[in-house]
Amino acid sequence: MTFEIKERDAAGRLCKFTTKHGAVTTPNLLPVINPNKMMILPKEMKKRFGTEILITNSYIIYKDTKLRKKALEQGVHKLIDFNGSIMTDSGTFQSYVYGDVKLDPLEIVRFQRDIGSDIGTILDIFGTPGQTKEEAEQGVKETIARANKSVPEKGEMLLACTIQGSVYPDLREHCAQQLSGLNADFFPIGGVVPLMESQRYSDLVRCILAAKRGLDPSKPVHLFGAGHPLIFPLAVALGCDFFDSSAYAKYANDGRMIFQWGTKKFNDLSELPCGCPVCSKYTASELRELDAKERTLQLALHNLYVSFTEMKTIRAAITGGWLWELVEQRASVNPSLYDALRVLREPQHLHWLENYEPTSKKTALFYTGPQTIYRPTIFRYHTRLFTRYETLLKTTIVFPEGTKPYSMFYSREIIRILKKKNVNFVVDSHLGPIPFELDEMYPLAQSVFPDEIDQETKEKVQQVVDRFLKNKIVIHWDEYNTIKEKKSLKQNVDLDIRRISAVADMQFGRGASKALLDGDINIIKSKRTGKIRNIICDGSHVISMRAEDGLFTLKLDGGRRLHKGLKNPLLRVVVTDDAVPFVKEGKSVFAKFVKDCDPDLRPFDECIIVNENDTLLAVGRTLLNRVEMLAFCHGMAVKTRESIK
Amino acid sequence: MTFEIKERDAAGRLCKFTTKHGAVTTPNLLPVINPNKMMILPKEMKKRFGTEILITNSYIIYKDTKLRKKALEQGVHKLIDFNGSIMTDSGTFQSYVYGDVKLDPLEIVRFQRDIGSDIGTILDIFGTPGQTKEEAEQGVKETIARANKSVPEKGEMLLACTIQGSVYPDLREHCAQQLSGLNADFFPIGGVVPLMESQRYSDLVRCILAAKRGLDPSKPVHLFGAGHPLIFPLAVALGCDFFDSSAYAKYANDGRMIFQWGTKKFNDLSELPCGCPVCSKYTASELRELDAKERTLQLALHNLYVSFTEMKTIRAAITGGWLWELVEQRASVNPSLYDALRVLREPQHLHWLENYEPTSKKTALFYTGPQTIYRPTIFRYHTRLFTRYETLLKTTIVFPEGTKPYSMFYSREIIRILKKKNVNFVVDSHLGPIPFELDEMYPLAQSVFPDEIDQETKEKVQQVVDRFLKNKIVIHWDEYNTIKEKKSLKQNVDLDIRRISAVADMQFGRGASKALLDGDINIIKSKRTGKIRNIICDGSHVISMRAEDGLFTLKLDGGRRLHKGLKNPLLRVVVTDDAVPFVKEGKSVFAKFVKDCDPDLRPFDECIIVNENDTLLAVGRTLLNRVEMLAFCHGMAVKTRESIK
Repeated sequence: MTFEIKERDAAGRLCKFTTKHGAVTTPNLLPVINPNKMMILPKEMKKRFGTEILITNSYIIYKDTKLRKKALEQGVHKLIDFNGSIMTDSGTFQSYVYGDVKLDPLEIVRFQRDIGSDIGTILDIFGTPGQTKEEAEQGVKETIARANKSVPEKGEMLLACTIQGSVYPDLREHCAQQLSGLNADFFPIGGVVPLMESQRYSDLVRCILAAKRGLDPSKPVHLFGAGHPLIFPLAVALGCDFFDSSAYAKYANDGRMIFQWGTKKFNDLSELPCGCPVCSKYTASELRELDAKERTLQLALHNLYVSFTEMKTIRAAITGGWLWELVEQRASVNPSLYDALRVLREPQHLHWLENYEPTSKKTALFYTGPQTIYRPTIFRYHTRLFTRYETLLKTTIVFPEGTKPYSMFYSREIIRILKKKNVNFVVDSHLGPIPFELDEMYPLAQSVFPDEIDQETKEKVQQVVDRFLKNKIVIHWDEYNTIKEKKSLKQNVDLDIRRISAVADMQFGRGASKALLDGDINIIKSKRTGKIRNIICDGSHVISMRAEDGLFTLKLDGGRRLHKGLKNPLLRVVVTDDAVPFVKEGKSVFAKFVKDCDPDLRPFDECIIVNENDTLLAVGRTLLNRVEMLAFCHGMAVKTRESIK
Repeated sequence: MTFEIKERDAAGRLCKFTTKHGAVTTPNLLPVINPNKMMILPKEMKKRFGTEILITNSYIIYKDTKLRKKALEQGVHKLIDFNGSIMTDSGTFQSYVYGDVKLDPLEIVRFQRDIGSDIGTILDIFGTPGQTKEEAEQGVKETIARANKSVPEKGEMLLACTIQGSVYPDLREHCAQQLSGLNADFFPIGGVVPLMESQRYSDLVRCILAAKRGLDPSKPVHLFGAGHPLIFPLAVALGCDFFDSSAYAKYANDGRMIFQWGTKKFNDLSELPCGCPVCSKYTASELRELDAKERTLQLALHNLYVSFTEMKTIRAAITGGWLWELVEQRASVNPSLYDALRVLREPQHLHWLENYEPTSKKTALFYTGPQTIYRPTIFRYHTRLFTRYETLLKTTIVFPEGTKPYSMFYSREIIRILKKKNVNFVVDSHLGPIPFELDEMYPLAQSVFPDEIDQETKEKVQQVVDRFLKNKIVIHWDEYNTIKEKKSLKQNVDLDIRRISAVADMQFGRGASKALLDGDINIIKSKRTGKIRNIICDGSHVISMRAEDGLFTLKLDGGRRLHKGLKNPLLRVVVTDDAVPFVKEGKSVFAKFVKDCDPDLRPFDECIIVNENDTLLAVGRTLLNRVEMLAFCHGMAVKTRESIK
């Protein structure tokens, strides 16, 4: 098995996952195949939806003499006629629905191995939301014990060890930690179907976050039994990679149509609010005229089109950097999901999410409603403003009430005057205070807000503003004209240097600007836009400012300065000795060669690459955060930009 | 031409519109056909999208000798090979884009008539957003003058008279009023393309509302040049019936894909976030491999699939009663649209919208964010609470802070105790104060809120609560136990009667309960649910409570009482003498036979039907409000339930 991150957004990731039967792109959806009754044949699924992986139930095969015999003789791939990856479930869910299933936990793992399942699942103990903590604890203990005994039986099969723990986050985290310590390959989050069914999405979010916190980040995570697309974007944003759907068939049998935004009874619909091939071929009344079996099949196809479309949308959102926008938009369609998003505001979760949040994106940040101000990106900006931004001037001009916020902005004329006067000023924006020097940095210049935001956001931002303005001299704009001749405002600091220093500190950490800019500075600007491009210090090119996100690209000479000026482990990615020759050749750093890393580095941060003795080797850009670098065995950790030959 | 309302939600309507070339369901989209260069043939559109109506440009045909000749000889339907309804544009937009087009305003109307256009358009003066008021006024004046002269030339063609007025609402309203006075058939709202292009949706909303306010409500309204589905739900909710799209082709030529939520460059997409037949057939990389012309065609087809899917979704939302939910969800994807929604909070607009808002819906009210509390339905509830609800008890128990709001609710046990004690209480809900007696009435019991709502909604609701509690004795729940033995709380009012009275007043108006319930009351309850069903007063069945919305159905005997107890014109729909025999037979009332109507009646309200001498004829349920009843020539105004033989 390999599993490597290709693209990322929020705490979600787009990965390449491989089994014996080929590669699978994640996030992805596994349609559930009932080996007794296939409503849609796996081959047909592959043709229509590009299905790369599916799931069937080994317990159903096992207890049916005929299926069992055929599966053991020809393998599960022949049995259901599918040559992609096949995951098998173990009977745990059946034990939840029908009570004890009388199955030997090791026997069913061996059986899955023997029928050639690509990913087999242990027979874990399904924890229900109604359990007491003691009951849940008992189930977790037994699940861990069974996982322990199952691992040696897996052979060449990948083994899925399911995380249980009912609605108790500490149990979920504990279970995840324990299972991560085993030689397992795949981690379903189990026992969530009752939460899904009763729309207890807040609890579901807590379960996912607790499991993710305890889990090895380099392994695929499957939200077991979550087949409604409504939950896909949020679950992916929290780091789930796989989902399975029996819902497509179950809902179709029940005459219900799945949509990205919910479910409707087919009979209640006068028109089909969907453009999938089924809904483009038939009108509602034409579907009504089909015979019952054919109509159910068409509803099932529709349900799968919608589910796979949401997966494609999520993958496009990860690559494009608009996953949070998608998550928040989907939450506006369901009040329980709206509540679930509030869970993410809790400091522990926000801190965790910030660790995985890319430092820059291809798409601007779009406001969707009261949840937006709690995005990890904004949380990071607020945090860094207080820990990394060193005000270079004592005087701050705050614009008077009524001034248009950042994205619409104060007039160009005012900016021109202020810049000319070398006056430091802070813009009162929807994102909080923006010191002038930072106003081109992601996400400040790359955000789109309505003219009017909601009260809740205003209050949250006001707290940040208040904290920021404490101990500062505040001059309102209307007072400015009367005092502008006073000496205190006549300063002769180079504005460009102020911008470069402030951004460098915000991006690389406190002290970075001092290390980078010690010497004679020469600033090369774009002839077309007049914007800062390259910064030359004492004749050597140290950093370049990127037009798209207003952040710096680190050059080798800049790396030398930061290596000297910032103490170990700051900004470092440490590679093992056997990787050193490759890095020197300019090759990128693979995760398995990372020995350690600055815990403050975030995905897409600029970094310096050193050997185990802290000798500088190269500069580059991270693709992973620290915990990921140390966990992953596959894929790139740092894209090397320039190396010391 | 006929145009009649079949279904409705918000101020939107689903209508049947007919031309010489057949029936068209509205809201609908007219793809723009360039007669010189058809990217997708009209026939193909009909096959794929069920296109019932399209638009082409008479000016382009007129100035091309060959096209002109063919069109005059064979008709425009043959020219573009389409046998559905065809609308033609006049060259106004070309004059905006290219400057003066040197075209005689009457000549181009006659030309459209002569080539057999189903709907021709006058050559109006395109008003731009940058115009001064004087300039805009001049344009409006000339547009009205041209419309005046054009009407006599229309022949059998339907004539579209375009409403102009730049961004000046009073000019828009004036123009709409003047044009409504002519014998015109169809009303485009013109000059909005520049607003669309610069995403000035707030201004667009003001333009639409002003036009609608001035317009004859019985005529179709077309938002001219608005081809992006992003704006469709909001525009429909404000009463637009038609849209046209040249965007599908223009965007495709430019390599851009339209989605319900915005636009993306095809080249920026790694996967296609869509399930339409094009995006289900091709992956992004397969589309990339097609030759340029074929790829552009496929993008255009995708753009039309998405646009028509949004139309289907809107029509399903109107029928299902979830149009506001759709509008608010779509607004969360675009900050400018989010701003535009705020315009609807302004009192004049809210009042106008409330006039058209149905009194009951098939679907529960779903909270989507800060805009929800400003829905016309909630505005109506708040208004009626202060004008129609007569508190029957002096003591009010308000639940203490921290009590779960209505939809999640206080415990059943508490309700049981309070009801037993005959204590009047008010629930502190997300919708504002809910007196116990009203807690089954739409939308109070039919609404779904998150546990936590936004600050802005809380503040708005608090204002209503404060006003409600003024001059009331407030007892907090924790105090209640200590005083529950006091006499003041020992009351002996029949709870069911209280509920019936309160709902009757809220629904029919002040004084209704007195008129309806004067006598011996017998309440028949559902055996299964224990809920109130039929109310018998002095032996006659006066009203029935509906399970789905907690509102009353009016019986003939109830009608007799309300006719007697409520002064003319309250609750009345007055029909002309020639309709009397039909109403007496139990036939429904068509709009053209309505002489007058209580201005307080709303769509789906219960009403009494009288003749011109105020003699009671029947009871029924309205489908239209007063202005609509007086304006429409086609379709039903009141569904008669029971009549006096």
